[in-house]
Amino acid sequence: MIDYRRLRVALLGAGAVGSQVAHLLHTHADELADRAGAALELAGIAVRDVDAPRDVELPRELLTTDAETLIVGSDIVIELMGGIEPARAHIQLALNSGADVVTANKALLATHGTEIFDAADQVGASVYYEAAVAGAIPIIRPLRDSLAGDRVNRIMGIVNGTTNYILDRMDGEGAEMAEVLADAQRLGYAEADPTADVEGYDAAQKAAILASLAFHTTVPLDAVHREGITGITKGMMDAARHAGYVIKLLAVCERLSGRADVADGAEAISVRVYPALVPRDHPLASVHGVNNAVFVQAEAAGDLMFYGAGAGGMQTASAVLGDLVSAARRHIAGGAGVGESTRANLPTVDIGKVVTRYQVTLEVDDRPGVLARVAGILSDGRVSIATVEQSIAEPTGPDEAGSARLVIGTHTAVEQDLSETVMRLAEDDVVERVVSVLRVEGD
Amino acid sequence: MIDYRRLRVALLGAGAVGSQVAHLLHTHADELADRAGAALELAGIAVRDVDAPRDVELPRELLTTDAETLIVGSDIVIELMGGIEPARAHIQLALNSGADVVTANKALLATHGTEIFDAADQVGASVYYEAAVAGAIPIIRPLRDSLAGDRVNRIMGIVNGTTNYILDRMDGEGAEMAEVLADAQRLGYAEADPTADVEGYDAAQKAAILASLAFHTTVPLDAVHREGITGITKGMMDAARHAGYVIKLLAVCERLSGRADVADGAEAISVRVYPALVPRDHPLASVHGVNNAVFVQAEAAGDLMFYGAGAGGMQTASAVLGDLVSAARRHIAGGAGVGESTRANLPTVDIGKVVTRYQVTLEVDDRPGVLARVAGILSDGRVSIATVEQSIAEPTGPDEAGSARLVIGTHTAVEQDLSETVMRLAEDDVVERVVSVLRVEGD
Ligand SMILES: NC(=O)c1ccc[n+]([C@@H]2O[C@H](COP(=O)([O-])OP(=O)(O)OC[C@H]3O[C@@H](n4cnc5c(N)ncnc54)[C@H](OP(=O)(O)O)[C@@H]3O)[C@@H](O)[C@H]2O)c1
Ligand SMILES: NC(=O)c1ccc[n+]([C@@H]2O[C@H](COP(=O)([O-])OP(=O)(O)OC[C@H]3O[C@@H](n4cnc5c(N)ncnc54)[C@H](OP(=O)(O)O)[C@@H]3O)[C@@H](O)[C@H]2O)c1
Repeated sequence: MIDYRRLRVALLGAGAVGSQVAHLLHTHADELADRAGAALELAGIAVRDVDAPRDVELPRELLTTDAETLIVGSDIVIELMGGIEPARAHIQLALNSGADVVTANKALLATHGTEIFDAADQVGASVYYEAAVAGAIPIIRPLRDSLAGDRVNRIMGIVNGTTNYILDRMDGEGAEMAEVLADAQRLGYAEADPTADVEGYDAAQKAAILASLAFHTTVPLDAVHREGITGITKGMMDAARHAGYVIKLLAVCERLSGRADVADGAEAISVRVYPALVPRDHPLASVHGVNNAVFVQAEAAGDLMFYGAGAGGMQTASAVLGDLVSAARRHIAGGAGVGESTRANLPTVDIGKVVTRYQVTLEVDDRPGVLARVAGILSDGRVSIATVEQSIAEPTGPDEAGSARLVIGTHTAVEQDLSETVMRLAEDDVVERVVSVLRVEGD
Repeated sequence: MIDYRRLRVALLGAGAVGSQVAHLLHTHADELADRAGAALELAGIAVRDVDAPRDVELPRELLTTDAETLIVGSDIVIELMGGIEPARAHIQLALNSGADVVTANKALLATHGTEIFDAADQVGASVYYEAAVAGAIPIIRPLRDSLAGDRVNRIMGIVNGTTNYILDRMDGEGAEMAEVLADAQRLGYAEADPTADVEGYDAAQKAAILASLAFHTTVPLDAVHREGITGITKGMMDAARHAGYVIKLLAVCERLSGRADVADGAEAISVRVYPALVPRDHPLASVHGVNNAVFVQAEAAGDLMFYGAGAGGMQTASAVLGDLVSAARRHIAGGAGVGESTRANLPTVDIGKVVTRYQVTLEVDDRPGVLARVAGILSDGRVSIATVEQSIAEPTGPDEAGSARLVIGTHTAVEQDLSETVMRLAEDDVVERVVSVLRVEGD
């Protein structure tokens, strides 16, 4: 046995992730010491209720409700409480007491990241957060370190397991969303209140963190355009499958260059979360169940993909412990903190100015001249048609007849042009109904 | 402009990778300085012939044949010459002169890694080698840092682009190997002498590096069992497809626990490179063309996959520059070197003791009792049958008739038992020919 220097580790929270971290710290103590070059001594575990039942048995004497006393005098503080307060205050206290911080708190980083990273910089401490995005999948280090000499142009991430589970089952079984969501809740993949997942709030937090890292730019949460999956129907899913696509909730982070609407030559970024059509042969299309994957396009490296479990207490604990070992190594090695590299300050363009391809599905009168009329409205709106498929719509009632369905694939168009054009289509006499408007990503 | 501290960077080699590194260092100088917190000044480029034509225009005054003078007095040395000597001596000189080293040299690390890492440790310098395995794909950092708090149980890697290109085209087009290899050579995906790729030497070097990192154990190259793809025929490929598999050249690194043949309770590892049957629905099965992917199974993190370009001058340069930024940050921050963590010293078991599933294809006499006889030989040899498919073999000549083909899927069996049993089968009267014996991985 090597007689390692001891580092005091404070654990804040012993829920799904925290209890697994405590467990692994105990069972893998020797190996962790070898990896870290230091004995990682769990000094205490702060919780709300020391008597609450836990998934994993924890030594009673380590549990405390006094987080502050625990934090002060620790070398490394692991924050796994979640939420904004008191997590924010605890992390500030940790940094001010000279500790390095490991956190999985995406909500906090997406809203108060700059404040926290600045505080760390000032005291020469480091903040590690591999677990905050895509659970067990290493994505923070690859973006921060491996790709530091490259230029990331685009990220497309499936970063929310709950919505991927729902969409994947709808796709695979032709099921309705309500029924799959109920299953997801029963299986513990979705919360009783699923809003944060299905409305894309969770994915938007992760998108802000990914974009900040990839583009070296502080991306505030309200710069992320966000749409959830609640509007996705079985019908849309079936139509997508028929057309060779699958619908995925994507976090898209995009670098925009040479745009007329951005001051000369300057670059800008777009960060957005929405359900999009992804071609079946794209690597993201085969990400099933609750898994996550992050697809990265970089100038020199080309296309990369990182795939794995996006959540789960034990899986996320793996990422937390990786960060803990990094923090410990730095503590032992000495030197300055890892820092954030956010000097680029690229502006975010409004969703209205984003350029993508679209698939617009319309129910129209089934009579001569209708296609020409629709095509005219699109062309007037600067939306150019790439493909059209026309089929007779199934009548939904006895008096509903004589209508056809048009599935229009567009060339790239400006979002604002497209949405104004769709409004004009919706108001037009020949259009009975706008069935769906979906962006196409990854082709 | 921030007035950064300058770091002198020596580049050894300006071939496929080196010339792209020089190019990116020049074009992305400002961004690299922001990322690294230091101005990276290219002090010189060592080559064999300063007048040789180059893919990328390089400033004539930077080129030199005097690598030693360039190395001494540099802060960071990037070795992209390849081969053992003089690369080994140059890296030693660099470390002894107090420089950090970045290298993509898998051949050198697989054979002299321990010597180099020890030398770095002694002087407190660091050696970075993200580019040595799977080109642009971040896999070294994820293994060394992200998974440092976890236990890797198994790695299956497609780490050689040339062989994946060949097997993928044989699979996709039903083509013969010779014809695809010729194409690969024409396209520059394979060397004029393809031995290093098709015989698995290149993959074996990468397997040794991956296993060393994953299991924190020095794995010498000769501990890696190696088989190439030259024995793979169009017939095997077709049969694999028919059975729901694809044949991939895999680098398998496996942790073995609780084995009777290893001293009580101790762990061991197996590192092997061979063509194997991979189920079509496994993520590795959809890695096409020259791409690489590394599939990692860890105790807590579960299944992870890292996918991207495994080679190419520019792609590999991305990984080199990521390492350069890391080296520069460490130089600026101060502190000890990154070090290697190889304290586990797990023994490698011989290939004969490895346990996998197999698919054995036999041509046998087509008469009653043959299946029972074959089954008897297998069972006597401690090989248990999971599935059997029998079909009438196409006669290969007018006098060849009355033979059948047996495709036998086994349960897990010990390699030595299996190979002895196959020998007994081959000698048996009822067996006309052993068509193929392939391991099954990833199911
Ligand atoms: N679960 C996942 O799969 C996952 C994946 C990625 C990231 N994350 C992130 O990891 C963090 C933790 O998630 P989780 O799922 O482990 O949460 P959780 O199960 O809700 O556990 C939260 C823990 O924090 C404690 N806590 C909360 N507020 C506290 C307070 N004011 N004072 C003291 N203790 C307090 C709780 O104490 P009591 O036990 O006494 O109530 C509980 O032990 C979150 O930021 C989450 O976003 C989670
Ligand atoms: N190419 C890839 O896609 C790839 C991918 C991953 C890793 N790697 C690794 O990266 C390294 C470089 O590969 P590469 O493809 O760039 O090799 P390369 O094209 O053969 O270039 C080698 C360079 O090193 C120089 N050199 C060789 N021996 C020298 C000596 N004795 N003294 C001075 N200069 C010498 C050569 O000089 P001259 O130009 O004057 O001949 C040439 O510029 C290798 O270790 C390789 O395994 C390559």
